[in-house]
Amino acid sequence: MRVGVIGAGFVGSALVQLLSDPTRHHAIVDAATAPLELVGVAVRDVSKPRPGVDSRLLTADVEGLIASDLDVLVEVVGGIEPSRGYITSALRRGVSVVTANKALMAESGTELAQLAHKHGADLFYEASVGGAIPILRALRISLAGERITRVMGIVNGTTNFILTKMTNDGSDYERALAEAQALGYAEADPRADVEGFDAAAKVQILSSLAFGTSLCGEEIAREGITGIRSVDVEFARRSGYVIKLLGVAERVGPSGVSRRAHPAMVPLDHPLASVAGATNAVFVEGVRSGPLMWLGQGAGGEPTATAVLGDVLDAARNRVSGRHDAPFSGDPSLFAVEVGELKSVFYLSVDVIDQPGVLAEVAGVFGRHDVSIQSMEQSGYGDEARLSFLTHIALSSDVSATVEELTSLKSVDSVGACLRVIDRGGA
Amino acid sequence: MRVGVIGAGFVGSALVQLLSDPTRHHAIVDAATAPLELVGVAVRDVSKPRPGVDSRLLTADVEGLIASDLDVLVEVVGGIEPSRGYITSALRRGVSVVTANKALMAESGTELAQLAHKHGADLFYEASVGGAIPILRALRISLAGERITRVMGIVNGTTNFILTKMTNDGSDYERALAEAQALGYAEADPRADVEGFDAAAKVQILSSLAFGTSLCGEEIAREGITGIRSVDVEFARRSGYVIKLLGVAERVGPSGVSRRAHPAMVPLDHPLASVAGATNAVFVEGVRSGPLMWLGQGAGGEPTATAVLGDVLDAARNRVSGRHDAPFSGDPSLFAVEVGELKSVFYLSVDVIDQPGVLAEVAGVFGRHDVSIQSMEQSGYGDEARLSFLTHIALSSDVSATVEELTSLKSVDSVGACLRVIDRGGA
Repeated sequence: MRVGVIGAGFVGSALVQLLSDPTRHHAIVDAATAPLELVGVAVRDVSKPRPGVDSRLLTADVEGLIASDLDVLVEVVGGIEPSRGYITSALRRGVSVVTANKALMAESGTELAQLAHKHGADLFYEASVGGAIPILRALRISLAGERITRVMGIVNGTTNFILTKMTNDGSDYERALAEAQALGYAEADPRADVEGFDAAAKVQILSSLAFGTSLCGEEIAREGITGIRSVDVEFARRSGYVIKLLGVAERVGPSGVSRRAHPAMVPLDHPLASVAGATNAVFVEGVRSGPLMWLGQGAGGEPTATAVLGDVLDAARNRVSGRHDAPFSGDPSLFAVEVGELKSVFYLSVDVIDQPGVLAEVAGVFGRHDVSIQSMEQSGYGDEARLSFLTHIALSSDVSATVEELTSLKSVDSVGACLRVIDRGGA
Repeated sequence: MRVGVIGAGFVGSALVQLLSDPTRHHAIVDAATAPLELVGVAVRDVSKPRPGVDSRLLTADVEGLIASDLDVLVEVVGGIEPSRGYITSALRRGVSVVTANKALMAESGTELAQLAHKHGADLFYEASVGGAIPILRALRISLAGERITRVMGIVNGTTNFILTKMTNDGSDYERALAEAQALGYAEADPRADVEGFDAAAKVQILSSLAFGTSLCGEEIAREGITGIRSVDVEFARRSGYVIKLLGVAERVGPSGVSRRAHPAMVPLDHPLASVAGATNAVFVEGVRSGPLMWLGQGAGGEPTATAVLGDVLDAARNRVSGRHDAPFSGDPSLFAVEVGELKSVFYLSVDVIDQPGVLAEVAGVFGRHDVSIQSMEQSGYGDEARLSFLTHIALSSDVSATVEELTSLKSVDSVGACLRVIDRGGA
């Protein structure tokens, strides 16, 4: 089994070291049912020293590597291009592909999976969601007979680290972000993480395997954590919740699917509530299986490399027996449900001028939009006051209209957070 | 794909209903890549009404069902015989087998897996450990390239229900057991659960997939929960722990494997600590992957049936493409490490006569056996006192010798609990 790797960053180097480890050789051959030969590692700069990677394996000629009679190509570079071009080129030659590229899979996964199937190759991407957590194969194979109703994941370690810091230390967002950056958990430009793009891509992948929605680059609803304040975190804790950025895909009615990434209030007794720091977790609910949860390291070179290696071994076994896995087939009857159509309990935090009649005015706005209030807490500071509301179950579009009208009131300084509250029903 | 089922209890009936559900038909055919035909359901008494099961499918002729050109046989009866005979008969005919039978797999798994391989059939048993939790396929496929160091599971729902009751309500063991029996979580004869036999069988299965130890019926070390008292549960909580019955398989040195099932003190911040009631969870640590955890419903007809159906679909897909999964190969270089050779922190509870000099006498016994004390708590009641010790890391055989000598002292009434304390290092 001839294996080529594109990329020698954290994941690529860890994978090369795993494949080259003589003490592991026997187990790896056994699992693949054939010896794996690492043919080459394509990198942009072959002169750069790569600790643990034999320099004779390095090449800058990616297409040459793909054309060298490979059985499995591993892509661990990331980004849309040129990765998509390389993967397409490999699949056209019938080479099986293993990738950790969530952005590419969320953008072109359906098309690439069809290409793989057409050319008798496998396309595996376990490492693209949840790092070391083997959630995708479980959805694809183990739960193939189950009717899944909802998938909720803490699938972005950066935002979970920041929110955990805010919860445990009372840090505000800026300080928690700075600490995440200093520790290497957040990038200098953190937008992909903190604005929910990364989580949204992972939701698309999870949803495609759980429900058969397509992976063709549609935008999905997305909110980040940049607006979360310490006061929201504190209110959540006092009320028995913790704020988490969740990626959610769920059935709505017989054929609807809602896909979204947003911060939410998670009840403290829900299994997702205690998932702290950079850990990832995916919570799956099925009609017969009941709730299931997976938890583990969502990032890092070595954890991610173990998921990639699992895929490489599975692809190698398939090639030894001359077959490939059928791509999980899409369900064309599904339609996307817009966020505005969903019902939920909401938390709203409204900063107002502290004067008589304001609460009545604000409450009136809720009432006019059919949003019923479950509880309210008022805290004053100087001339201002903060009103924290938990609603009863309300239509999301009604809540949006409420926020819009509140924002236009003279007596309202701003509407801070507007967060969905997740129901209990844990494992 | 012709499918036969032996057994129409909770799991069998739920499976038959899943296979017969017209609204699921399309998804099931898709996942199997071929239509599944339920050929027959073998039961002892065909005249007994079985809700949801078409009576025309029922047969008492198991061998006739096996011989009717089956592709996949599902065994959900349990017990060693006659299940082993039926499974052997099916595998000899090249029929793939899916079973939920942990006792049989722990007793004869290696031999049956070899038989399956010889006849080109699959033998899948995902439902035998952790009910709906897809842990076995993850160990076998997704983590095939990982060097797993330890697997710890809460794999027996009955004992976890009892221990959770004792922890949350302060119930004593007898009351918690009675409640579990009243609610159907414990059998009238609860020994298989409360004495750790069930957990031990599951440890054998987990260990075989994690490390390549054999499944050939060796006894593994086993302690039950019948000796756990409310005072132990209370001491655990005060000290930051919760008592759980754990099934453990772990590497010791390069080639040793320890397999055991016993109650243990789990730190409250460990992911296993919050696994409550009848929920199951498996915590896996690997060299590169870091900690991983799976959580879900460990029992029940429908959750277990979803795991069985996942296996049936995987076996059907394999048959459509004319292949079968290689059985995970054993590692003959592994040897079993006896419990006495293991090191751990221990909790000991010693009931003594409350008189001067007793503590010195007791402490002297610890010292003579090289067991160093980390902390001690004394609580008096009447003429007696209870000494609760946490040791430093000590050799298990030294702790056993300590317990033996303590028991022989005149001033010692009894040694209550002697529990291992699990280290932190959670996810």
